[in-house]
Amino acid sequence: MTRVRIEDIGRHTGESIEIAGWLYNLRKSGKIAFPQVRDGSGLIQCVAVKAQLPEEKFEALKHLTQESSLIVRGKVRAEERAPGGYEMDVEDFDIVQRVAEEHPYPITPKDHGIDFLMDHRHLWIRSRRQHAVLRIRAEVIKAVRDFFDSNGFLLVDCPIFTPAACEGTTTLFEVDYFEDEKVYLTQSGQLYNEANAMAFGKVYCFGPTFRAEKSKTRRHLTEFWMVEPEMAYATLEDVKRVGEALVCFVVDRVLQNKRPELAVLERDLAKLEAIKPPFPRITYDAAVELLKKKGSEIEWGSDFGGTDETLISEEFDRPVIVEKYPQQIKAFYFESDPARPELALGADFLAPEGYGEIIGGGQRVHSLELLEKRLAEHNLPREAFEWYLDLRRFGAVPHAGFGMGIERVVTWICGIDHLRETIAFPRMLYRTKP
Amino acid sequence: MTRVRIEDIGRHTGESIEIAGWLYNLRKSGKIAFPQVRDGSGLIQCVAVKAQLPEEKFEALKHLTQESSLIVRGKVRAEERAPGGYEMDVEDFDIVQRVAEEHPYPITPKDHGIDFLMDHRHLWIRSRRQHAVLRIRAEVIKAVRDFFDSNGFLLVDCPIFTPAACEGTTTLFEVDYFEDEKVYLTQSGQLYNEANAMAFGKVYCFGPTFRAEKSKTRRHLTEFWMVEPEMAYATLEDVKRVGEALVCFVVDRVLQNKRPELAVLERDLAKLEAIKPPFPRITYDAAVELLKKKGSEIEWGSDFGGTDETLISEEFDRPVIVEKYPQQIKAFYFESDPARPELALGADFLAPEGYGEIIGGGQRVHSLELLEKRLAEHNLPREAFEWYLDLRRFGAVPHAGFGMGIERVVTWICGIDHLRETIAFPRMLYRTKP
Repeated sequence: MTRVRIEDIGRHTGESIEIAGWLYNLRKSGKIAFPQVRDGSGLIQCVAVKAQLPEEKFEALKHLTQESSLIVRGKVRAEERAPGGYEMDVEDFDIVQRVAEEHPYPITPKDHGIDFLMDHRHLWIRSRRQHAVLRIRAEVIKAVRDFFDSNGFLLVDCPIFTPAACEGTTTLFEVDYFEDEKVYLTQSGQLYNEANAMAFGKVYCFGPTFRAEKSKTRRHLTEFWMVEPEMAYATLEDVKRVGEALVCFVVDRVLQNKRPELAVLERDLAKLEAIKPPFPRITYDAAVELLKKKGSEIEWGSDFGGTDETLISEEFDRPVIVEKYPQQIKAFYFESDPARPELALGADFLAPEGYGEIIGGGQRVHSLELLEKRLAEHNLPREAFEWYLDLRRFGAVPHAGFGMGIERVVTWICGIDHLRETIAFPRMLYRTKP
Repeated sequence: MTRVRIEDIGRHTGESIEIAGWLYNLRKSGKIAFPQVRDGSGLIQCVAVKAQLPEEKFEALKHLTQESSLIVRGKVRAEERAPGGYEMDVEDFDIVQRVAEEHPYPITPKDHGIDFLMDHRHLWIRSRRQHAVLRIRAEVIKAVRDFFDSNGFLLVDCPIFTPAACEGTTTLFEVDYFEDEKVYLTQSGQLYNEANAMAFGKVYCFGPTFRAEKSKTRRHLTEFWMVEPEMAYATLEDVKRVGEALVCFVVDRVLQNKRPELAVLERDLAKLEAIKPPFPRITYDAAVELLKKKGSEIEWGSDFGGTDETLISEEFDRPVIVEKYPQQIKAFYFESDPARPELALGADFLAPEGYGEIIGGGQRVHSLELLEKRLAEHNLPREAFEWYLDLRRFGAVPHAGFGMGIERVVTWICGIDHLRETIAFPRMLYRTKP
């Protein structure tokens, strides 16, 4: 008998087929049982009628425990009222492993605390909401890669182990390498990306990055995935243009391919359908004025906090691009605005609905002299940056790029509360297990 | 004037366009100069005629230094004899940054030692061979992802930070987490993949993995990328079937899309074109017999060394699948062969031409009792595995998967000597910079 994945079951209406999965839920009356079976690709309701099965089989099914594994054979039938549109009339089945009554599946429809759920993350990911979020995550990642692959960017992965701390060690994780050497886990592939852009023109890296921030907020993970494009012969304008196109492409893809998952999450689709170019663009100066008008006590020269970001973004129905920040709150490698050298040619994208920054980037310093001056001003160890200075000695060109945090984007698109649900096994301040 | 990427220049024959890149090479006679310009997407020879440029411009071009950045405007012309098939007649150009004579580009056509090149890896990646290798790498990665995405596998990334050492700490990198907690960098996503497969049916993870092996061989990196599929309701047969299909798909894609790069590397295409199913399959027993016949002193029960792998693989013109290894040389999670319990249901793929193992995997233990016994036999801390045991308590099913090392595959496909050239910034025993 043909084994079919539940997501493909619509192609087999009227046929007898086999599905292999797990018991998700079970309703029953005296003479009929409705086991809901999930197989990872989907969920289907089966209908088992007592009169059509050997008695001991029907009894075994009626008392089957949640998440027991089973293989069901039966006929597929279109059923408008069923979620998914199909049902399966059970002809036969085999139980692969029965979950013991005395040690039942721990996650039940009742309300569990978040710590309990996180301790059982290896099982929690089987739940419908978690399932939906992680499938949307995979779609977002595929969309991001397709976007860059089809727009002339070459994937060049940057190293995870980075040598001597470049920007201070406070938020870096330290690793014992060989023979007492210390290395650090990457916070960003950008510096390497710049070398790669000079070799390949347009590149992106996409991998895990690490930040040892002692913040226990819903917007922070210690291990998160980031995509970082970098372009030679490019400026701040390109960051805004490419970032906008990328975000629209990703949201479109999810809307096209992940409607059922968005429905599970009860996501307001109108909010996502509004994500179209052009995105509003405001300067840092204007953002500070806006915040003051809204009662914030922010002063020019300070960085935005989470609350500030929310206050700014609630003015717009799509991501807002805030650009030209004070140089003093940006990293040493930001190019200065020629018109106002106190400003950095950087741009951040703040997601709507209070989801905070999803993209940060800008144009990089490409003059050797300016970069040398910046290293000195920031008290950075020049030897560690010799290779980076080489990029300004050997064919320097204006160049720019940005980073987009995947978990931030997925949280926003899913419309959920916390980053921790957007990755299979989140790592946080007090969470390294399972 | 339209700016064009060199790889697209064929669509602009007869037009005046602009390219932005770097001076790769320069030949000149008295009245004509032939700057070769690279822009990351390709390389083109330009032709600058003295009579057609202002004198000081022609002189500047004639004395331009290697890797200086420049923007060239001119007319595209088909030219059969040119590598790539096109040339550009220079109408005008601007030098963006001129590399200083007193500090010239360090990599020249002369033979540099490997340490020098590795110290200048941020520049070395601009060279033609390195360029070709890294473009093939990107194609391999895209092919791998396309293969899994279009065959019902969901991407679910596994954590990099893993808690308490599971299989001993000798080859694990230790990280200082918060408050004196120690975590380790992942060597494989497999255990987590198993949880993900029970949630999603068929999954894969694809990310960097870390191995603190003190081996300084051409086959080892401390940081390398691995793709790991895992399938529920699957057996050793599925590992062999999916692995074979994957390898063929990847090699095909490179042959289709990366001919020019393979030509740069002078790769023998016939060797790659031979990579077709079915792959030869031999048992470990048969492999030991074969080795003995070839003069090896291996005894049944030992693992293969690099030389053994080469001796086996030289018998075949495509990857050979060696299966059913002694349980004693395999990890605790391998399912046993029911017919001969001393054998593990594992399979390794050995690449031809002596490139060694590219895939390793097998069927996992799915019985709770057997897994508990194995943990005890291997003296593994049971508490750390409670979540992993849960996968056998709550809907255990036969399942299987494998890992494929990207750098190993790229090394083989490129036909090069050492893994270190297959990643932009390799990390090895004595190499953490740049």
